[in-house]
Amino acid sequence: MAFPRPKPTTERANPPFNVRKLAATMQGSEKSLKLKEKFMAEIARHPAFRNNDIHDLTKDEVRERTAEKFASMVYFFTSESIEAFQERMALISIADPAFWTRFGVHFGLFLGALRSNATPNQLSYWIEKGALGLNGVIGCFAMTELAHGSNVAGLETEAVYDHNSDEFVIHTPHLGATKWWIGGAASTCTHAAVFAQLIIDGKKHGVKTFVVQLRDTETFRLLPGVTIGDIGKKMGRDGIDNGYIQFTYVRVPRAHMLMKYTQVSRKGEVTEPPLAQLTYGALLGGRTSMVADSSNTAKKALTIAVRYAAVRRQFASEGKAVETQLLDYPIHQRRLLPFVAQAIAIGFTGQKLNAMYTDMTESLERLEPGDPSLMETIEKLKETHATSAGLKAFCTWACLDTIEKSRQTLGGHGYSAYSNLPAMYADFAVQCTWEGDNTILALQAGRALVSAYSAAVSGKKVAPGVAYLADPKTLSAKSDGSFSLADIQKAWECVAANAVKRAAAEYALFRKEGMNKHDAMERCSQARFIAAKLHTTGYIFKMFRAAVEEMEASPETDVLRTIAHLYGLWQIEELQGPFLKYGYLTGEQIDSISLKVNDLCLEVRQYAVPLIDSFALSDHIINSPLGKWDGAIYEAYFAQVQASNPLPKEHPYFTRLIKPLLDRQPGDLEDAGEEMGLDDEITSLAEASKQAIKAAKAAKAAKKQQK
Amino acid sequence: MAFPRPKPTTERANPPFNVRKLAATMQGSEKSLKLKEKFMAEIARHPAFRNNDIHDLTKDEVRERTAEKFASMVYFFTSESIEAFQERMALISIADPAFWTRFGVHFGLFLGALRSNATPNQLSYWIEKGALGLNGVIGCFAMTELAHGSNVAGLETEAVYDHNSDEFVIHTPHLGATKWWIGGAASTCTHAAVFAQLIIDGKKHGVKTFVVQLRDTETFRLLPGVTIGDIGKKMGRDGIDNGYIQFTYVRVPRAHMLMKYTQVSRKGEVTEPPLAQLTYGALLGGRTSMVADSSNTAKKALTIAVRYAAVRRQFASEGKAVETQLLDYPIHQRRLLPFVAQAIAIGFTGQKLNAMYTDMTESLERLEPGDPSLMETIEKLKETHATSAGLKAFCTWACLDTIEKSRQTLGGHGYSAYSNLPAMYADFAVQCTWEGDNTILALQAGRALVSAYSAAVSGKKVAPGVAYLADPKTLSAKSDGSFSLADIQKAWECVAANAVKRAAAEYALFRKEGMNKHDAMERCSQARFIAAKLHTTGYIFKMFRAAVEEMEASPETDVLRTIAHLYGLWQIEELQGPFLKYGYLTGEQIDSISLKVNDLCLEVRQYAVPLIDSFALSDHIINSPLGKWDGAIYEAYFAQVQASNPLPKEHPYFTRLIKPLLDRQPGDLEDAGEEMGLDDEITSLAEASKQAIKAAKAAKAAKKQQK
Repeated sequence: MAFPRPKPTTERANPPFNVRKLAATMQGSEKSLKLKEKFMAEIARHPAFRNNDIHDLTKDEVRERTAEKFASMVYFFTSESIEAFQERMALISIADPAFWTRFGVHFGLFLGALRSNATPNQLSYWIEKGALGLNGVIGCFAMTELAHGSNVAGLETEAVYDHNSDEFVIHTPHLGATKWWIGGAASTCTHAAVFAQLIIDGKKHGVKTFVVQLRDTETFRLLPGVTIGDIGKKMGRDGIDNGYIQFTYVRVPRAHMLMKYTQVSRKGEVTEPPLAQLTYGALLGGRTSMVADSSNTAKKALTIAVRYAAVRRQFASEGKAVETQLLDYPIHQRRLLPFVAQAIAIGFTGQKLNAMYTDMTESLERLEPGDPSLMETIEKLKETHATSAGLKAFCTWACLDTIEKSRQTLGGHGYSAYSNLPAMYADFAVQCTWEGDNTILALQAGRALVSAYSAAVSGKKVAPGVAYLADPKTLSAKSDGSFSLADIQKAWECVAANAVKRAAAEYALFRKEGMNKHDAMERCSQARFIAAKLHTTGYIFKMFRAAVEEMEASPETDVLRTIAHLYGLWQIEELQGPFLKYGYLTGEQIDSISLKVNDLCLEVRQYAVPLIDSFALSDHIINSPLGKWDGAIYEAYFAQVQASNPLPKEHPYFTRLIKPLLDRQPGDLEDAGEEMGLDDEITSLAEASKQAIKAAKAAKAAKKQQK
Repeated sequence: MAFPRPKPTTERANPPFNVRKLAATMQGSEKSLKLKEKFMAEIARHPAFRNNDIHDLTKDEVRERTAEKFASMVYFFTSESIEAFQERMALISIADPAFWTRFGVHFGLFLGALRSNATPNQLSYWIEKGALGLNGVIGCFAMTELAHGSNVAGLETEAVYDHNSDEFVIHTPHLGATKWWIGGAASTCTHAAVFAQLIIDGKKHGVKTFVVQLRDTETFRLLPGVTIGDIGKKMGRDGIDNGYIQFTYVRVPRAHMLMKYTQVSRKGEVTEPPLAQLTYGALLGGRTSMVADSSNTAKKALTIAVRYAAVRRQFASEGKAVETQLLDYPIHQRRLLPFVAQAIAIGFTGQKLNAMYTDMTESLERLEPGDPSLMETIEKLKETHATSAGLKAFCTWACLDTIEKSRQTLGGHGYSAYSNLPAMYADFAVQCTWEGDNTILALQAGRALVSAYSAAVSGKKVAPGVAYLADPKTLSAKSDGSFSLADIQKAWECVAANAVKRAAAEYALFRKEGMNKHDAMERCSQARFIAAKLHTTGYIFKMFRAAVEEMEASPETDVLRTIAHLYGLWQIEELQGPFLKYGYLTGEQIDSISLKVNDLCLEVRQYAVPLIDSFALSDHIINSPLGKWDGAIYEAYFAQVQASNPLPKEHPYFTRLIKPLLDRQPGDLEDAGEEMGLDDEITSLAEASKQAIKAAKAAKAAKKQQK
C-alpha cells in the first residue's frame, strides 16, 4: 500500500546556512531560543495543553479545558522572571490564543490597569487581596460597551459620587451602556476594572477606572446589583468566556477608584493630573506585542504551507514520470515565499519596536515632577504611539492575509479543521479589531505623519523615524536602476514622503475651503490611509534592513539579506502605483523588479524547507498533520481524521430522515406538480426526465424490432 | 432605559429611485423577484430552516438539521420548473450553503454526471432506480482523492475489467488514492459516481466514471469491500457530511461504467469519443453559477454592514451633541461602498455569463455527428471555459474579501458568531478552491489570453470577448482625461491588452532560451496571472456597462450608471500600477480619480440604505441582528445573545478549577521560584511586587510618624 512520497531529507540536505544559528538570530539570541524550546517541551507534555482533539470539542468543553491551564501558568508567573514569562506568553499566544487571552485579561489588562493607574497604596492593597496569584482576586477589564468601543471618552456607564456615604455608585443607565465583550466575565472573574464616567454633583469629569467586585469569592454568586451574562459563540477564541455586565446602582468605597492620576477627595474635589497624555503609555504594550505575534503566527501558518508544498505533488512536467512538487511551481513560490520574507521582516521589526517601547516605559517610570527630560519623554511617547499604531494595523492585517493565503495553498485540505489553518484564521482575526481598530489606528498614524510633515516643513525637529519626510531630495528622488538594500530604502522614503505630502496638501485644501480641522482631517482620510500604509511598509523594510546591517558577516546574514531584498522588491511590485506616480521608477524598472522577484523566489525556494525549520516551531505548536516535520503528512492526516471521528454504533437519523426518502413510492409527490401555478410553460425536470425515459424505451423497442 | 437611536426611516426617505424597480432590475425581472420573495417566505416559515440557533449547535446537530431539509426540497425539485428550482437553489445557496452543497451533491453532481456521461439507456435505468426522487438512490460524487485534487487525469483509483465475469473491479491501491472530501458519503448516500482509471489487460485508458453502490438501501449497511469514514470537522459547511471511501476489489457490472462518450465492449474493446473536449462542457455549470453566488453572498454581507453603519454612531464632530453615524465618515464609505458597487457589477456579470453558458450548452445538446456548426460550438465552449475560469476565480476571491472587510467594519461585534459574518466567511471560503482552484483557473484564463493574443497577432479570428487584444490602437491608447463609461472601458482594454502582450513576450523569451512549452508557460505564470486579473476586472466592468447601456432611461438606470462609474474608477485606483506603467494615465489623472472615487462614495452614501434594500434579502436570510431591517440592532442582538446563552443552573467547573485557585494560600507556590535556574539576575514580578508592597507600607508608616 506504499505510494511515492518525497523525502524531506533531500530538502534539508546542505542548506547554505546553519539552521540553528539562523533560528537564534530570528529569536533574538541563543539563550532565548533555548527558553523557547524548553517552553515548547513543557506544554507538549502537559495534559491540559494536549491539542489534537481541540477541533472537535464543543465551546463549553473548550472553555473548561482552557480553565485547566490556569494553575500551571500561575506557578510560572509567580516564580520566573518577567522577561522569561513574557517569552513564555509570546509562545502561548500562538499555541493557544484563547488561553493567552483568558490568562492575559487578568495579568495583562486587570493587573496592568492596577499597575499603571493605582497609587502605590492601592496597588499594595489589591496585591494583598490576591491580585497577583489569583488567590482572592481574579480580575477582568470592563471597558467596552455594547454601543461604544473605540471612543473610550464616550463610554456611558456612570460612577456617581455619594457624599454621604463616601462611595461611588456604579450604574448602567441603558442597554447601550452594557459592558460588552468582557473577557473572563462570564465564568472566571471575581472583580472588574470598570471604566465609567466620573460624575460629581451632576458634573462629568471624564472616564476613570473603578475596581468593582462582581462575585462572592466563596460561593461565586453574583453580588447584588451585578447582572452578568455569557456573550456566547464567537468567530474564534472560544476558550475565553466573554460576558456582558450590567450594574444597577452598585456601591464601591471611594478608594476603589484608581487614583494615581486623577484624585477625588472626601469632599468630592477632583484633582486632574498635569499631563494626562502620560497615562496612555501603558496602553501601548498590547499593540506593541501584537507586531511580534503577527510574525510568529504568520510563521506558524507558513511552516504548514511550505512543508505541505514540499511534499504534495501535482501534474507531471513533460517527459517526467513523477509529478512536480508544488514548491517547484513558480506560481506556488510566488504564493508563499514573499510572505515568508514578510513574516521574517515583521519579526525583526517587532524586536526593534519592543526595544523602543521598553525605552519609552523606562523613561516614563523614571520621570519625576519637574524633570528636565519631560519633553523628551513626551516625544518618545508620541513616536511610540504613532509607530506602534501603524505597525499594529498593517502587521496584523498582513498576518491575517498570510494565514488565509497559506490556507488556500493547501487546496481542499486547507478547508479541513485538522489543517489547523481555519482555527488560526478565526483566532487571529480579532487582532485586527481589538487594542484599536486597524483602520482607526492607521488613520492615527496618518495624522501623525501629516503633523510631522508640517512640523518638518516649518523647520521644527521631528522624530528620527520620520526625519526623511520633508527632505526635498527625498521627495524628488529617482531610481538609477540599482537595487541594493540602501536603494530600496531610498525608494520607500521617496514614495512615503510624497504620499504624506499629498495628504497634507489635501488637508490644507479642505481647510482653505472653510472646513473645520476635524472635518478636513476626515475628508483626507483616504490619502492619510495610503500615506500610513506606504510609510509603515517602508518602516518595516528599514527596521529589517537595520537589523541585517548590524549583523556580522556570515552565511545566515547573507540569507537574511536575500530575504530583505525579496521583501523590499516584492512590496514595491505590490504597491507599484505610487512608485510610478511619483516618478521614482519607470515602467521598465517595474518590469525588471517583477522578474527579479521571480528570481529571488526561485533562489529562496532552494532552501525554503530549512529556512522554515529555523522558525523553530514544534509539531505540537503547529498542531497540523499537514505540516508535520517528517513529511509523512498523509499518514498523519488520515490517522487524525480517523481518531477524531470514530464511527457511531448506529446511524443517528437514518430511520427518521433518510429511510422515508428511500422508501417513498414514485407517485407520492410528483403529481403534486399540478398545484404549482408559476411558470407553467416550462417543463419540470421530473417531466423532462420521464420523457427521456419514454424516448429511451421507445428507441430500445425500435432497436429490438429491427433485429 | 432608552438611548438615542437613529431612525432608518430618515435614511429611507425619498430615495432618488424606486427601490422595487431597482430590485427587479438586479434580480433580472419582476417575475423573478416575486419568485424570490415567495421562496424567502417559504423557508422563513419552514421549521427545518429556522436559523437563529444555528451558531450554537454542535456539528452533529447541524448535520441532522440539514438532513431534515431534504424532504421539503425533493418535493419542489420534482414538481416545479427547472428554472424556478434553479432560482430557489440560488437563494438556498446564500441562506444555507451547507444544505445547498448536501442537496447539490446528489442533484448537481451525481445526477449531473449521469445526465452528461450516461447513455440514454443508462440514464433511464438509474432514473427508474430512483435517482431523480431519492427514492432508491442517493448519490455522491467520488472524484477527489487524498493525494490528488486538481489533476483529475492523475487519479489513482483503479477500475480493472474482468473479462470472465464482464465486471469492473474497483480498487483503492494505496492510502493516497483514498476518495476524500466526498460530500454525502459519511452518512447520506447509497451510491457513488466513482472516477477511476479504466484498466483493461494492464493498459490504462484514462479516468472514467463508474456508478458503485455503497450501502444497502434497506439497512444502510456498507456493502462488502466498501470502507467509509467521516472526514469530520471543517472550516465551514458542517451541515454536509464529507467522507472518505476506500474500495477493496469491489465488483460492478460493465454497464455501470457511464458510456455516453467512451465505450467498453463485452470483449474489452475501448471506443474513444472523437472530440473528448466536448465532455467538459457539463463541468462549467458549477463555476458559472458561482459568479452569481459571489454577488449574492457579497450583497448579504454588505446588507449587514451598511445597515449597521447607518445605526452605529462613534465620536462626535466638533460642536455636535450626537455622535456621527459610521456611514458619514468618508473612510467608512470607502470601506463599504466600492464593495457594494463591485457586488452589483458581479451580479450583472453573472447574468451575462449565465446567458453565455446556456447558449453554449444548447449548442452542445443540439450537436449531431457531422454537424457544420461543430467548430463554432467548440469555439463557444472554449470561450465559456476561459471566461468562466477567470470570473470564477476573481469573483469568489472578491466575495470572500468583501465578507471579511464587511465583518471588520462591525468592529468587535463582527467577531460575534451572531453577526453571522464569521460563518459566512467560513462557509464561503471553500468556493476559492473547489470546482477548480482559483489560482489554477486564473492561470488557465491567462493561458487562453496568451493564445488569443498570438492568434490575433497572426490575423486569426478570435472570440468577441478578447477581440480588443491585438489592436495597436488599444495597446497605445492614452486617456484624454475624460471618464465616461466608454472611456473607462477603453482604459481597461488598454492595460489588459498590454499585460497580455507582456505575458506573451515573457513566454516567447523563455521559449527562445530553450525551455519546453510547459516550463515556459509555468515560468511566465506571474505575468499570466496579472494578465488574467486585469482582463477579468475589465470584463466585469464591460458586462456591467453593457447591462446598463441596454436599459431604458430611468432613475434606476441613472443610479446604476453612477455605480458603474464608482466600480470602474475604484478598480483603476486599486490596480493603478499598470495604468501608469503602460502610459494610459498620468499621475495627476490617478490623483483626480482618487478624488472622484471619494465624491462618488459620498454620492452613493446618500441613498446607501435604500440601495441595499434593493438587494431584497429578508431578515431571515440575513440572519444577523446587527443587520436588521428596522434598525433596532442592539435590542435584537442582546435578545439573541440572551436566548442563545441561558445561564447554567450551576457553574460547570468552579469547584474543580477556580475555587482551588482563589483559596490558595499565598505561600503555596511563590517560594517555588527558588527552583528556577534561568535568568537569576532578573527579579521576578512576584519579587518586584513584594518589594513594592514593602515600600508602600514603609511610606505609610513614615507618613503616620510625621503626623
